[in-house]
Amino acid sequence: MPTPPGSRLDPHHDRYAERARTMTASEIRALFAVASRPEVVSLAGGMPYLRALPLDDIARLVERVVAEQGTEALQYGSGQGDPLLREQICTVMSHVGIAAHPDEVVVTSGSQQALDLVTRIFVDPGDVVLAEAPSYVGALGTFRSYQAEVRHVAMDEDGLVPAALVEALGTLSAEGRRAKMLYTVPSFHNPAGVTATPQRRAEMLQVCREAGLLVLEDDPYGLLGFDGQPPRAIRADDPDGATVIYLGSFSKTFAPGLRVGWALAPHAVRDKLVLASEATQLCPSSFTQLIVSAYLRTQPWEEQVKVYREVYRERRDALLEALDNLMPAGSTWTHPHGGFYVWLTLPAGIDAARMLPLAISERVAYVPGSAFYAGPDLPDEARRSLRLSYCYPEPDRIREGVRRLAAVVERELELRATFGSSQATQDTAQDGAGPAPDTA
Amino acid sequence: MPTPPGSRLDPHHDRYAERARTMTASEIRALFAVASRPEVVSLAGGMPYLRALPLDDIARLVERVVAEQGTEALQYGSGQGDPLLREQICTVMSHVGIAAHPDEVVVTSGSQQALDLVTRIFVDPGDVVLAEAPSYVGALGTFRSYQAEVRHVAMDEDGLVPAALVEALGTLSAEGRRAKMLYTVPSFHNPAGVTATPQRRAEMLQVCREAGLLVLEDDPYGLLGFDGQPPRAIRADDPDGATVIYLGSFSKTFAPGLRVGWALAPHAVRDKLVLASEATQLCPSSFTQLIVSAYLRTQPWEEQVKVYREVYRERRDALLEALDNLMPAGSTWTHPHGGFYVWLTLPAGIDAARMLPLAISERVAYVPGSAFYAGPDLPDEARRSLRLSYCYPEPDRIREGVRRLAAVVERELELRATFGSSQATQDTAQDGAGPAPDTA
Repeated sequence: MPTPPGSRLDPHHDRYAERARTMTASEIRALFAVASRPEVVSLAGGMPYLRALPLDDIARLVERVVAEQGTEALQYGSGQGDPLLREQICTVMSHVGIAAHPDEVVVTSGSQQALDLVTRIFVDPGDVVLAEAPSYVGALGTFRSYQAEVRHVAMDEDGLVPAALVEALGTLSAEGRRAKMLYTVPSFHNPAGVTATPQRRAEMLQVCREAGLLVLEDDPYGLLGFDGQPPRAIRADDPDGATVIYLGSFSKTFAPGLRVGWALAPHAVRDKLVLASEATQLCPSSFTQLIVSAYLRTQPWEEQVKVYREVYRERRDALLEALDNLMPAGSTWTHPHGGFYVWLTLPAGIDAARMLPLAISERVAYVPGSAFYAGPDLPDEARRSLRLSYCYPEPDRIREGVRRLAAVVERELELRATFGSSQATQDTAQDGAGPAPDTA
Repeated sequence: MPTPPGSRLDPHHDRYAERARTMTASEIRALFAVASRPEVVSLAGGMPYLRALPLDDIARLVERVVAEQGTEALQYGSGQGDPLLREQICTVMSHVGIAAHPDEVVVTSGSQQALDLVTRIFVDPGDVVLAEAPSYVGALGTFRSYQAEVRHVAMDEDGLVPAALVEALGTLSAEGRRAKMLYTVPSFHNPAGVTATPQRRAEMLQVCREAGLLVLEDDPYGLLGFDGQPPRAIRADDPDGATVIYLGSFSKTFAPGLRVGWALAPHAVRDKLVLASEATQLCPSSFTQLIVSAYLRTQPWEEQVKVYREVYRERRDALLEALDNLMPAGSTWTHPHGGFYVWLTLPAGIDAARMLPLAISERVAYVPGSAFYAGPDLPDEARRSLRLSYCYPEPDRIREGVRRLAAVVERELELRATFGSSQATQDTAQDGAGPAPDTA
């Protein structure tokens, strides 16, 4: 047999599991190494603005946790997570209308791990997972790593379109196949910046219940709405969890560096999640769990969420105003009422992934829309779309970033007018695992 | 179709992935809930003795990390791990003879996660993994969760037996199959308490190299030897990592509640491990990484390792002396020169798993040997073996635990003499996922 390409560079080349063969870093990822330079305005990352935290208070808090609970905080803990923290998580979930018991909560290393564990116990290779179009890039990475087939379901300004869901189920049924689950971010969607209306949520739940489809409700941004009450979770209207598994996180309401999230699932599922978690990491960090627990117990965490909301509202306003003032005609974008992201669709003929190297050379970064789709077959609108994050840069930097972006788009449009659009419709550089998910 | 049993209790019953179907908690696990009562002397868990740590110093250290590096410590980090910590990890590995570059290190949520990620990228369902007989229960759980077929290879007081490895490879070859990797804990083995000699390590490496077999060297206890220099890692003699992937951990040299471990792998494998880690958890906790980094930088960590060694040496001595004084004739046990564990083999006819409920009612707990084997087909010696941990209880408690255990064994032997041994050779209660791995 001939030597496979690259085997001299990788002595383990012929040993990989099937699931690892498609795990290759994308070209976009390489660009992001450049995008992290300070002169680049990054509208790409999903990093919370931690300067809004009272760091001195937190420093004292972590000191106390070690001094007073050190032998517990530094020790192994239970696979399911700290019992007191699980009670507190139930209180947090009551803000989105969920009445849960601590027994149903599994603490995880961020909600990304919850996503991984749920996929691990439910998804066989080749299983179909339905997901909004577009969807969170980190979830797509997880589904890909379990060799799931992701099918996208249309979304509009009111969230996932129930008729499109029914249609997708019908298509599958005609193929003699069944979807395993629907992955949804109903509140302040990443990357689309839209929120499902109460009516849409009820319809989604109804359709999935009737079809016997598991709903994986991912809700990291639920408490970060800019107007009034947080949206009621879908899980709130599925009180026994027979249809909905709910994922939550402290990454956006407190701090992501602690890696504390959770899954809410009925007992039988919880048992499997705990076993899977133990096989993955023995237990989540006792230390970061006790810190979150002490933070919730002793600090005004709800006030802090309000502080975050005000920070992000001001930045959203700055971004939307700059888009209004600067983007060329034919551009459209979503108007988020919470969360971190705006979904921008550029005039016809522009390819956001192809435009990215130019944008970065002009010192502005974003994530191309193609990253938020599972397959290479993109709808035209997705190809000319991109995600803008307003969570991390200061308002002035956001305005400067949009100014640079608008100039790049204008230049692309001029080139297109001069040389035609044939190039712009070719395949983009998107492949493999997409950009690093929201950590840069 | 008839309703499957339990479906009314588990609304998600018919949705699980194939890999989740065998994930059921064992009966032994239920017993351990009882075993955690304070009146029980637990010789079962693998918890380090954290009272040996300078908690006040660590409290001040974590306060400084938040006050001085808070926005970094609480933020998302890179999937590969903090660059400075990766440099420090190379220094730690130099103590077992490894010359590595920080680029080859992937920081993980404990070495259990490294185990999971390596298995994830290398093992397809049905792949054969070779492992020592007995093997670490947490590794078996991980291999099981990826539907690997584990075949055990004999071990003696000098570690894995190379002739048995060659024989296992020959058997596989005759079946037209190939093993994917060899999992080994060469230093201060969990659960066997033995250490592979330098000669055995060299032979193991040679055999695996010739057979094209990946070696997964798991080394959490390497620095916790009681005599002289730490054993030289197998990876130290495979400088390009073409055969050996090495796993390390701060759980035993510092503290497990931080969940910081690592994998050392060549670049191409490292890339896949990073992608898999991102799909699993985005990134390891920046917070706990920076704490470990600050601890290594500012605290006398090597002195602390010496403190731990002395604590565990004293406890090993207490355990061995008590076994010498108290165990009935026909019992044998290993004599560890480091680490946490003694492997005790009871007189013929005794079944350690069956005896466990009685032992717990007599207020002493251990892990039955059967937990450390992948399949239900146990060698007779394994059935009458068990693991004793001396890491956590004070020496007096260890002596008291052995006293209780010896009394239970004596009673079993009397019963056996009176009623015969027919019962004792039946199948044990061992099933499914085994006990919770070393966290209780």
